Amino acid sequence: MPTDKPGCEACSPAGQTSGRHVIQPDKTALINRLRRIEGQIGGVTAMVREDRYCVDILTQLSAVRSAIDAVSIRILETHAKGCVREAVQDHDGDDTIEELMGVIRKMIR
Amino acid sequence: MPTDKPGCEACSPAGQTSGRHVIQPDKTALINRLRRIEGQIGGVTAMVREDRYCVDILTQLSAVRSAIDAVSIRILETHAKGCVREAVQDHDGDDTIEELMGVIRKMIR
Amino acid sequence: MPTDKPGCEACSPAGQTSGRHVIQPDKTALINRLRRIEGQIGGVTAMVREDRYCVDILTQLSAVRSAIDAVSIRILETHAKGCVREAVQDHDGDDTIEELMGVIRKMIR
Amino acid sequence: MPTDKPGCEACSPAGQTSGRHVIQPDKTALINRLRRIEGQIGGVTAMVREDRYCVDILTQLSAVRSAIDAVSIRILETHAKGCVREAVQDHDGDDTIEELMGVIRKMIR
Repeated sequence: MPTDKPGCEACSPAGQTSGRHVIQPDKTALINRLRRIEGQIGGVTAMVREDRYCVDILTQLSAVRSAIDAVSIRILETHAKGCVREAVQDHDGDDTIEELMGVIRKMIR
Repeated sequence: MPTDKPGCEACSPAGQTSGRHVIQPDKTALINRLRRIEGQIGGVTAMVREDRYCVDILTQLSAVRSAIDAVSIRILETHAKGCVREAVQDHDGDDTIEELMGVIRKMIR
Repeated sequence: MPTDKPGCEACSPAGQTSGRHVIQPDKTALINRLRRIEGQIGGVTAMVREDRYCVDILTQLSAVRSAIDAVSIRILETHAKGCVREAVQDHDGDDTIEELMGVIRKMIR
Repeated sequence: MPTDKPGCEACSPAGQTSGRHVIQPDKTALINRLRRIEGQIGGVTAMVREDRYCVDILTQLSAVRSAIDAVSIRILETHAKGCVREAVQDHDGDDTIEELMGVIRKMIR
C-alpha cells in the first residue's frame, strides 16, 4: 500500500503486475498537466468536427505532442532519481537500468 | 460554410483566422481516434493518481505519442493530397508548400 | 543526362532505378554541409578512440543528428517545391504525393 | 591516463574539460560503426553531386539518422551502467543523474 512518502517504494499488492507503487513527488501538478493535455485533445476533436483547416489542427497536435514529451521527461527524471538510484544502492540495479534503457529507446524511437 | 464535399474548400467565414474549411475525408473515424486518445490520457492520469510504477506510466505515454503521430500523419496526408494539390493546380501554390514545410518541421522537431 | 537547370527533371538513364535526375538548387552549399557532417562524425570517432567522456560524445552525436535533420528538411523542401509541384501540374501527382508521405513518415518515425 | 579497464574512470588530465576518461566496452565495434556512418555520409554527398533523385537521398539520410541513434543509445547504455551507477554508489550521484537527463532531453528533443 502506498504511503505519503514520495519516491519509489517496493511493494507487491495482489493482482498488480508491476508490484510497485511510486508516489510522484509533484503528483498534483502532474495530474493537472495531464488534465490540460486531455482538454487539448478535446479541443483538437472539436476542430475536426468543425472542419477546421488542416494546418491549424496539425499545429495543435504538435503542441500536444510537446506537452506529452515534457510530462514523460518529468516522470523519467523522477524515475531515474528515485527508483533507479534506489535499485543501484540496494543491489547493482542492472535490471532497473536495463528497464530504463528500454523506456528511453521507446521515447527516442 | 462547409459543405458535405470532403477535401479543401476556400471560404472566409467571419471571425475565423485561417478562413478555410476542410472536411476531413474520414472525419468520423478521425474523431473516434481522437476520442480514444483522450481516453488514453485519462487512463494515464488515473495511473498517476493511483501511484502506479513510473515505467508503466511512461510506456502508456509512449503509446499515446504514437497514436498522436499516426493521426497527424493521416491529416498531413489529407492536406497534401487536398489543399496542397489544389493550391498548386490553382496557382503555383508556393505559399501552401511553404506552410506545409513549416508543419513538417514542427513534426520532425 | 542532367542539365544545369536546377530542379526536377524526368529522364530515364539506363541502369538507374529511380530514373530521375534532380539538380539541388543549392548543390554546392549542400555538398559542403554534408562534408562538414562527415567531418563531425570523424570527430566523434576520434573521441571514442581517445576514451572521451560518454556525455561529451553523446552531445556531439546530438549535434550531428540535428545537422542531418536540417539537410533532410532542406532537400525535402526542394523536393516539395520542385518534383511534387511538377508532378501535380503535369498529372494529378498522386504517386508523387504518396511517395512524399512515405519519406515524411520515415523522417518522423 | 586511460587504462585497459573498460567502463568509467575518474581522472583529470591537464587541458581536458570534462576530466574523465571512459573506455567504451565495445570500443572497436563502436569505432567501426562510426566509420561506417562516415562512409554512408560520403555516399550521400556523392548522391547529391550526381544529381540523384531527392527521395533516394532522403531515404539514405533516414538510414544514417537511425544508425546514429543506435550508436547514441549504445553509448547511453554504457554510460548508465558505468558512470551513472558508479556515481550513485560512490555518492548520491545527483549531479550525474541530472547530466544524464540533460543528454536524454537533447536526444528526445
